[in-house]
Order: sequence, then C-alpha cells, then structure tokens
Amino acid sequence: MRASQAAAAKQIEALDLENFFNPSSVAVFGASKAAFNLGATICKILSDEAVGYRGRVYAVNRKGEDVFGAKGFRTLEEIPDAIDLAVIITPAFVVPELVRQCGEKGIRSIIIESSGFSESGEEGKRLQREVDEAARRYAIRLIGPNCLGILDNRHRFCCMFGANDLAPLAVAHPGSVSYVIQSGGIGALLVERLLDDVSGINKMVSLGNKSDLDEADFIDYFDTDNTEVIALYLESIGGGRKLMETVQRTKKPVLVYKTGKSEAGSKAVMSHTAGLAQNDAVFDGACRQAGMIRLHTPEELYTLPKMLTEMPLLKGRRIAVFTNSGAFGTIGADMLSDTRLVVSPFSEETKARLAKLPGVFNAENPVDIGPAPPEVYLEIYNILLGADEVDGILHMVSMWRDYVTDVMETLVSLCRKHEKPAAMYAFSALDKLRAAQLEKRLPLFAGAQEAVRALVVSHEQFLAVQKKGEPLWIQ
Amino acid sequence: MRASQAAAAKQIEALDLENFFNPSSVAVFGASKAAFNLGATICKILSDEAVGYRGRVYAVNRKGEDVFGAKGFRTLEEIPDAIDLAVIITPAFVVPELVRQCGEKGIRSIIIESSGFSESGEEGKRLQREVDEAARRYAIRLIGPNCLGILDNRHRFCCMFGANDLAPLAVAHPGSVSYVIQSGGIGALLVERLLDDVSGINKMVSLGNKSDLDEADFIDYFDTDNTEVIALYLESIGGGRKLMETVQRTKKPVLVYKTGKSEAGSKAVMSHTAGLAQNDAVFDGACRQAGMIRLHTPEELYTLPKMLTEMPLLKGRRIAVFTNSGAFGTIGADMLSDTRLVVSPFSEETKARLAKLPGVFNAENPVDIGPAPPEVYLEIYNILLGADEVDGILHMVSMWRDYVTDVMETLVSLCRKHEKPAAMYAFSALDKLRAAQLEKRLPLFAGAQEAVRALVVSHEQFLAVQKKGEPLWIQ
Repeated sequence: MRASQAAAAKQIEALDLENFFNPSSVAVFGASKAAFNLGATICKILSDEAVGYRGRVYAVNRKGEDVFGAKGFRTLEEIPDAIDLAVIITPAFVVPELVRQCGEKGIRSIIIESSGFSESGEEGKRLQREVDEAARRYAIRLIGPNCLGILDNRHRFCCMFGANDLAPLAVAHPGSVSYVIQSGGIGALLVERLLDDVSGINKMVSLGNKSDLDEADFIDYFDTDNTEVIALYLESIGGGRKLMETVQRTKKPVLVYKTGKSEAGSKAVMSHTAGLAQNDAVFDGACRQAGMIRLHTPEELYTLPKMLTEMPLLKGRRIAVFTNSGAFGTIGADMLSDTRLVVSPFSEETKARLAKLPGVFNAENPVDIGPAPPEVYLEIYNILLGADEVDGILHMVSMWRDYVTDVMETLVSLCRKHEKPAAMYAFSALDKLRAAQLEKRLPLFAGAQEAVRALVVSHEQFLAVQKKGEPLWIQ
Repeated sequence: MRASQAAAAKQIEALDLENFFNPSSVAVFGASKAAFNLGATICKILSDEAVGYRGRVYAVNRKGEDVFGAKGFRTLEEIPDAIDLAVIITPAFVVPELVRQCGEKGIRSIIIESSGFSESGEEGKRLQREVDEAARRYAIRLIGPNCLGILDNRHRFCCMFGANDLAPLAVAHPGSVSYVIQSGGIGALLVERLLDDVSGINKMVSLGNKSDLDEADFIDYFDTDNTEVIALYLESIGGGRKLMETVQRTKKPVLVYKTGKSEAGSKAVMSHTAGLAQNDAVFDGACRQAGMIRLHTPEELYTLPKMLTEMPLLKGRRIAVFTNSGAFGTIGADMLSDTRLVVSPFSEETKARLAKLPGVFNAENPVDIGPAPPEVYLEIYNILLGADEVDGILHMVSMWRDYVTDVMETLVSLCRKHEKPAAMYAFSALDKLRAAQLEKRLPLFAGAQEAVRALVVSHEQFLAVQKKGEPLWIQ
C-alpha cells in the first residue's frame, strides 16, 4: 500500500510541474508597453506565430494595457478566466503581495523572474521569506525568484524574458534533451549551438534562487516525461542528499557541469546567484556514488547528449578504432590511452577476416583503410560489431566522398542492431558535418577528443545504471 | 668570418628549400591519362585556373601523353627546358633510376610521393637506400618518399595528389601559419577547418619517410620566410637533438601535436609510416627545454594559431576575466584555476574605477556586466588593459547585439596598443562567429576551454622566447 501511495504522490508532483511547461493560460505580471519592459518580451514570444503557443495570455500592469496580443488588466482579480500559471517580473517589493493574490485566485504554479531577493542583501532575503510563507500557505509551487523561466519546445511554450529572437529558432528544433540551468547565457548557448545538431532541446528550466523547486524536483519530473537525457548546469546545489537520491531513482542519464570549484569562481557565483559553492571533491565523490556524470566543459552540455540519444550504451571497455586516414587511428589510440577504455587486441579470427578485405592497410586495431568502396566499410562494421572482443567503435573518418555519409547512416543502424555504440568523429569541413547531422541524423562529433569523451561518458552511464538502487553512503 | 660563412650557408639552404615551394617549372613523373592515376590529379591542380599556378608543368609517362594541360614526354631527357622541381609518383622500383636521371639533368629538388620504401619491408628499404645514394651523389634535396608533397597558398603552388578539390579553396584563403605534417588526413582537416577562420595556411609540407629533409629543416626554412607560426603534426622525430636545436634558433612559435605516445598508437604509426615513436616523457621534457609548445589535441593545430598571429604575447600570469553573462565569469575562473595562470585580484583603484561604470554587476575579478552600452565595454577594456595587475584578458561574451562585434574589433586594437592579449570566447551561434572572423578578422574561440588554452599557450611562447639561447641539456 505504501508503495502505491508513494507512486500516486509522485504522479501528483509530476502533474504539478507539468503545469509549468504546458499551461493553458498564463498571466504575466509586470508586462507593459513601457520602453525596455522585460515582461513585454514574454508577451511577444507567446504571441509570435513562429513560436505557436496556443494558450491564453494576460498582461497585468498598472494601466491595464494590452501587450503584444496579451489582454491587459490592472489586477489579477479583474481577469475573468482561470489562470494556470503566473509569471512575475515586477519590482521585488510587490512580489509577496502578488503571490498572495495568486493564492487567493487558486493559482498553484508561479515563476518569479524578478531579481532583488536573497541574492541581493538583507531586504531581499526578507522579501524572499515573505514570498516563501505565502507560497506555503496556498500550497503554491515556485520557480525562482531571480530566474529566466521556462522553454518547452514540444508544447511551444516559452516565458524566458529577452528570448524573443531565440524562442522561434528553438521550438523549430525540438529534441529529447531536458536542461536545468542557472544562467541565461548558458541557455542561449545551448539553444544556439544545438540548432545544427542531431540533438535538440525538449525542455529547459532556469532555477534562479531555488526558493522552492530545485534541480532534484526537475530530475524527478524529467524522469516521467519524454526526456531522454537530463543535463544540468549548476552553480550551487539545493540539497546534496536529495539531489543524489533523485539521480539514483532515474535510469535516464543525468549529466552535470558544475562551476564554482575554484576560489575565484566561487566568489563570482556569490555575486550573481545566492548559492554557496560546495567543496568540489565531495561533489565529485557524490556524483560517482549516485551515478551522475560530470562534464569537463560547458561545451559538453551540447556536444555529448547525441551519443546517449542516438547510440546504445557502451557496455564494456574494449574499443575498436577505425579510420580511413592512418594518422587518426594513432590519434584515437593515443587519446583512449588517457581514459579507462582500452584499444582492444583483435582475435586471430577478426584479424583474418579483416585481412581478406581489399584496401585494408592494417588488419589490427586501429583498423586503417585506404580508398575503399562502400562495401568494404560495411563489411568492416559487421566484423567489428560482431566481434566478441569489441564493445564499441571509435570511428574517425574523412567524409571525402559522399558515400562515406551513406555508410555512416548504415553504421548507426548496425550499432542499434548489435547494441554496441560507435562514436563518430568526422574530420571534414564543419558545413559537411552540419548537413549530415541535419539531413541524415548522423550523430557526428567535430573533434577527436569529443568522440573519445562520448565513449567514456556512454560507459559511465552504463556502469551508473548497473549501480542504481545500491544504498548511498553520502551525506 | 665563421659567423658570416654560417649565415651564407644558411641562406643557401633556405634558397634550396624555397625551390620546393616556388618552382618555375615542374615535371610530374608518373602522371598519365590512365584511370585513377594519382599524378594526373597533380597536373589537374596545376592547370586549374582557380589555383592559378603560373609555372610550366610537364608530365613524364610511357606514352608521352599530355595530362590536363601538362605537356607530355616519354623521358626527362626529351624535355627541352630546364626543370626546377621533380615530383615523382611512379611505382617504387623505378624511382632510383629517375632520381639519377634528375641528377644528370641538374635537378636539385625532388619530391617522391610514391610509397613502397622503408615503410614496407626489406625490398622497400633497399630501394630507399638506392634513392638516398643517388641523391647524395648529385647533391639533390629530397622530400619523402611516401609523402603528399607541398601546398603553398602564397605562390599558388600545390603538388599534393588527390587535393584537386581542396587546393582551390586553400589558395583562396592564404595566411601566415606554416605546417609540417605526416598525414594527408591532417592536411585536409587543416585546410577545411581553417576556411572560416582568421588564420590561414601559408605553406604546408608532408614529410613521409623523411629520407633526407625532416621537420627541423623546414623549421629553419620557415624561420626565414613570411611564416608567423610554425605548427607540426608529427608521428616520429627525425633527430631529437637537431630538432630541438632548430626550435631554439627561431623566435617564431613552434607548436607540435605528436602522436604515438601509447603502445597501441605506436603500433598504428609503425604500420603506415617508417618512424619509431619515441618515449613520450622524454619528448615532453625536450619540448619544454627547447621552447616547443605541445598541443593537447589535433584540433589545437587550427584553433590556437590565431592567438599568436592576431594578439600580443601574454607576458605574465595575471588574467582579468570579463563577461556579459555572469555564469561565464565563473566558468572562466574555474578553468583558469586548472592552469598556471591566475585570476588577478584587482587593486582598489581598478575596483573603484569599474564600480563607477553603469551596468557593472561585479567590479571585482571576474568583471560581470549586464545589458550595457558599447561605451561601457570600451571603458572597461581601457581600465583592465591599463591596470598594472592585469597581464591579459579572458573575454567571454555573448554576441547578443551587433555592437558587441564592434567593441571586440576595438578590443583587438587596444590589445595591440597595450601589448597585452585578450583570448576572445564568444558563446553564440557558430554562424555569427564565422561571420565576425571573416568580415572583421576577429580571432574568436568557439569554446571556453579553447580560449583558456590560447592564453596558456601564449604565455608558454613568451617564456620560451625568453629562454631561447640558453644551452640545451638534452641528448
């Protein structure tokens, strides 16, 4: 009985959060026609046909004026309809009262994008406490304050202020990676860099001061929706144990890039969000325990997810390196030697089968071929993916002829069939890579190091899934 | 007297090599109209108007047939004119005799692109010895065998077989970085990835088996021409001491990416060139001694040179981090903490001057600004570059408005004026970066890690230049 109650409770919580991403009506507090008004940019996004949001939008401002197609009202009370979601972007001092009004009207989901709370001194802290009390009284779930809000590419909903240029681009390229971010700059980077990629954004939420909902809540939520990869950009941790327990509950990959590990970095964090940078080594150990995958650069937030969405997981450490230009076989082997993965020695049978093929310069690992027809590529893929001693492929090729793109398309299918991944690095012009990614959905890496990291991360996720359910020893 | 003799000898040697890059006439041995003929691709390049080579081209083949505008002859003897450079791409067994014929005709520069020499067994080794003897007898300088030849974008000369698609693109984008490579794949990667960059290729030479000329000879040569940055992709070292002494002689930056450090990597190298991978740690120490800068990835061969061609060197370790999105200040500070560089504490004066500016969120280091007008950017640049406690800037911005591109253009000038560099990372769409690189010559980095590495490498080069001339203790 307790298990089913817990499941029901979890479902209710999941539904609560769903409302943030897929509201049928939104009131934007503080949106007006004044110059440089931030709320107006949200109304603009929600009325933009290229974005295509289908719910009702209301603007609440002193004059009660309409803003970009959002019907204007002086107060919430005057709005005759029910409101699913309140977005507040007014001066901080009026926010506690607005939260109470929302509570009275039955609104249970609020995003506070205004700044001026716990990130900015004693008065801000006091205001944030007032907001929190009101939210608790009315059982309201809060995102923020001091945040950017939400982007949902599937539901074509976006309440991120200032994102009026980016939102139409983002919704046109939906995907299955959901992001939790603590920075608008990172959000913009992710949207812009993923436009040409195989991966795309499913949902994105900016947390701000995390007065109520934090990264753990959204991991739980993304575990229930159509998300395939969860990726976090964090400057502070809401609650360490809660986060790690949440990560343990989901079998979906959870990637994290966390800043503030250096003293100078921590100081910078303090100045623009209210979090406290934790001891980095403790965080590292906790990630390893809970199965959260730590990224090395902010770039990996957008380059690596395609390995997890498009390819099976790497179930062992033994890699076959394949190249159509000898140098890259060596580069791949060198780079793998710096990881826990290994360049797998081939069995006599594998070597014999490779040696029979025309154009194979080296029938050992790394496999190196010259100008060979497409059939040779495909035979090699079958030999390598079928070999017991190979868990995955590091595929380093020049797209020097169009057929290379075609054989890579087949390689993706073969990988899925054999349940072994290939990390595909293509050392050709970036234009060619983009075209292949967009037209053929090839998960290509633009750098050798990226491809090697993709294999490492894929294997980390495989090991993490095995371990999930083991008790956590962390605090 | 001895010094002037040495200088004269050096000049003669430099002139010798000049002939490889800027020949007024070329004979291509083995170029014919047969299907898949590799020599024909060289004749095609040299007759391509888009490449624009202005010298005379001859093809030597059994039938004496013309090939893509190259006048055909059965033998070298039959060519009535003098020949500056011979390019040989015939079966290996005829090469020794061709070298002797070249010697008789007075040709002193030969590129042997044929394979089948010391990289492929005893018979190949014997043939290479024969070639070497003939070359010595006639005082011929050799590139190869088993190489790709040469690309010179300034002289619009290219004898790299199979490069008929790439050569016209390359010559249209000349630059000041000269490369020594041991792999065609790497050559193609460099050409393709640099097309959209501020940097471009000056000269590129593929060394192959290095039976005569090796990387050290070309470093000496690039020290005398219009090259600004020398970059090497090496799988083996011709002679360690010779190389390091050569590096010590030049004040131009010498960057190297060397493979074969792992066992699997070494084996791969053995299978496609004749070099022996040296002990990696010894190589590392030697580089540090001689002032050669080791790169971490093959990507750095094309991403980093712009820092050295477009910016002054970093003369100290103290970095100011600047951003228009707080998160990136933290990221920059974190990444710097993993290097020998430091996030410089600001003086009270610097802090006071920054604090006076509108839109500055954080007047400490990292400096973090909100939506500010261009004048604020420029004032900050002047404050930071003028501060005694700042040696260089890590500039991490979103190009969210067009004026950001304009202020970055001014930043480049200011850096040159103050003789302090800025590593400029832009976290915007790659299209925007490309446009700014091509139209405004902004040396932009697409990744945060790249920008940090650029500062590290700039400082390494500064330190290397200081040390040049000290005695080498390496073998």
